[in-house]
Amino acid sequence: MRLAVVGTGLMGASVGLAAKRAGVDSVVGHDADDAASALAHERGAVDEVGALDEVLGDADLAVVAAPVALLPPLIEDVLARAPERCTITDVGSTKDWSIRFPERFVGGHPVCGREARGPAHASADLFDGATWFLTPVAGTDPDRYRLVHGFVASLGAVPVAIDPQAHDRLVALTSHLPHALANLLVNQAGAGRIEGHDPLAAAGGSLRDMTRVAGANPRVWVDIFLDNAPELADALAEHRRRVEQLEAALAAGDGGYLARWVAEASENRRRMLAEAYPDPGALQRVTVHVPDRPGVLAGITQALGAERINIEDFELRHFSPERGGVLTMLVTGDGAAERAAALLEAQGYGVSISPVLGE
Amino acid sequence: MRLAVVGTGLMGASVGLAAKRAGVDSVVGHDADDAASALAHERGAVDEVGALDEVLGDADLAVVAAPVALLPPLIEDVLARAPERCTITDVGSTKDWSIRFPERFVGGHPVCGREARGPAHASADLFDGATWFLTPVAGTDPDRYRLVHGFVASLGAVPVAIDPQAHDRLVALTSHLPHALANLLVNQAGAGRIEGHDPLAAAGGSLRDMTRVAGANPRVWVDIFLDNAPELADALAEHRRRVEQLEAALAAGDGGYLARWVAEASENRRRMLAEAYPDPGALQRVTVHVPDRPGVLAGITQALGAERINIEDFELRHFSPERGGVLTMLVTGDGAAERAAALLEAQGYGVSISPVLGE
Repeated sequence: MRLAVVGTGLMGASVGLAAKRAGVDSVVGHDADDAASALAHERGAVDEVGALDEVLGDADLAVVAAPVALLPPLIEDVLARAPERCTITDVGSTKDWSIRFPERFVGGHPVCGREARGPAHASADLFDGATWFLTPVAGTDPDRYRLVHGFVASLGAVPVAIDPQAHDRLVALTSHLPHALANLLVNQAGAGRIEGHDPLAAAGGSLRDMTRVAGANPRVWVDIFLDNAPELADALAEHRRRVEQLEAALAAGDGGYLARWVAEASENRRRMLAEAYPDPGALQRVTVHVPDRPGVLAGITQALGAERINIEDFELRHFSPERGGVLTMLVTGDGAAERAAALLEAQGYGVSISPVLGE
Repeated sequence: MRLAVVGTGLMGASVGLAAKRAGVDSVVGHDADDAASALAHERGAVDEVGALDEVLGDADLAVVAAPVALLPPLIEDVLARAPERCTITDVGSTKDWSIRFPERFVGGHPVCGREARGPAHASADLFDGATWFLTPVAGTDPDRYRLVHGFVASLGAVPVAIDPQAHDRLVALTSHLPHALANLLVNQAGAGRIEGHDPLAAAGGSLRDMTRVAGANPRVWVDIFLDNAPELADALAEHRRRVEQLEAALAAGDGGYLARWVAEASENRRRMLAEAYPDPGALQRVTVHVPDRPGVLAGITQALGAERINIEDFELRHFSPERGGVLTMLVTGDGAAERAAALLEAQGYGVSISPVLGE
């Protein structure tokens, strides 16, 4: 199998590294930016670099990894230059446009949000466990589809087939709408002072959680928003309709509506967590205040590791150098939570336990 | 100083524990639920329990910690029963109603979101480093204000004075709006399948981050939403106006608007992070895929601790038992990030580094 990587930025170089890890003998790369292909070569992501025609000449599979706004003309170009034998795929985050290329092309989209850019940040395990959408269409050749499917699985990803337009509606809802809301929220909170108080300075945990992706990678995200504008606009219109319903319930003082609405959210969150945890109902949150100094984290994790307590999620949220931070761990089962609490209390920490779901 | 805690749930019992930690000699407690006051006593949060008249009889300060919907009549009752000498404060998350009680009462609101409820989860350090809003009004007695201010500072909190109505607008924006958006988002994503695909099953990191508080504590949150309905409705209306602007920009394909909007979000996020980190511009994100088994976390944190690398934030996000998880650390400075990466690479992990802000 001879692989060509067209575009050796973060994604392309990571595809190269993961392919080398999977045992692919020959990986050649091309990037319009010579520095990017040289760095990808230096990092071992590609065995050789060359002009576009050179890298495509012998390829069995070409992975096109370019900003989404540039993809359609670039794929057209690659299709024109690559030999008939070569199958082409991509890693773009929208797929609607891909129906223009039913022959020799199979659209792809690995879901592995990384804030980084460029081959310097590439990693062989970027795709481990990640969903990798593939968007075959009616005209897709089954052998070519099988090739791409097997390839992305060999990189450690989980291939999931989906219709290209359904894909774009799905990511509008699961990725582009959350990103848009994060930007909207932080800009509203940052728009002005309330009687001298800066809302951003008073941000609690919920505002911080909800704006973590705000402002990320303007060049990448503006393209994504524009490219998936109709689907995102639909999701925003539906969001606005739901906001209006909530406003009506608040105006009417309708506690019953609000209770049903929060309960529905709780149930939806449980379904979402069930994807990642074998038994979300048994998850317990263990919370500890810790001082801000080196060694604290090691002491705590060593003690828990020695007791074989398996930590599902682990988060140290730093509040400030003076005030220290809060450590939150998720463990499965009351027993594990209580053992964890006992160990930490023995180290002099105050510990609080609560179930993640329900009450 | 003799302290009375009226309502010995999570907050009241934590006030008791923190007051004992601060050296308050006498803490007495009352709860309408005898089991709650008995458990608070057992946990050492109060020295004695008694009827409301009994606990108020000798008190210098009474802290009323009840669900926000019950607070106004309860505070009226406490004011009627408590001796003239006694100052009364509360821990309710809205404050508009408190202007009804200018005499002997100083409104308070510690910002320390905890999903837990009940005295079993109380902790002496719940308030360490937390903002504790105080809402004095024109008629507030300066000595009583000073008493409450000193008391909450002694619990480890940071007292911040604010006008009661401004407080409610501020928390509508920084807490109630984010909670509402989390519920709205998870309910929209969970509302139905897209060509057979459940959006919740395809949730990426952004959707998970943004719905972490969704569905939390229905009984508590329905009260809060109702109690702060006008201010939350104003924040939602402003949010809707901003959504409409975004929809217009998408419809017009206005890349310039989107770029300015994302840049504004980036700048606002930088301002927010500046509250918690001395130098947010120097923050580097170090990301590692790790297998799901005990001991991994201890091995990593030990190695970093031994090198005295101070970790600002630390998060292990568990994807699934089969696929393992992703560990994300924030460290300050390129040098620290590179030393961390070198240590982890020596342990056989693939590491990626990227700046938290900008590019």
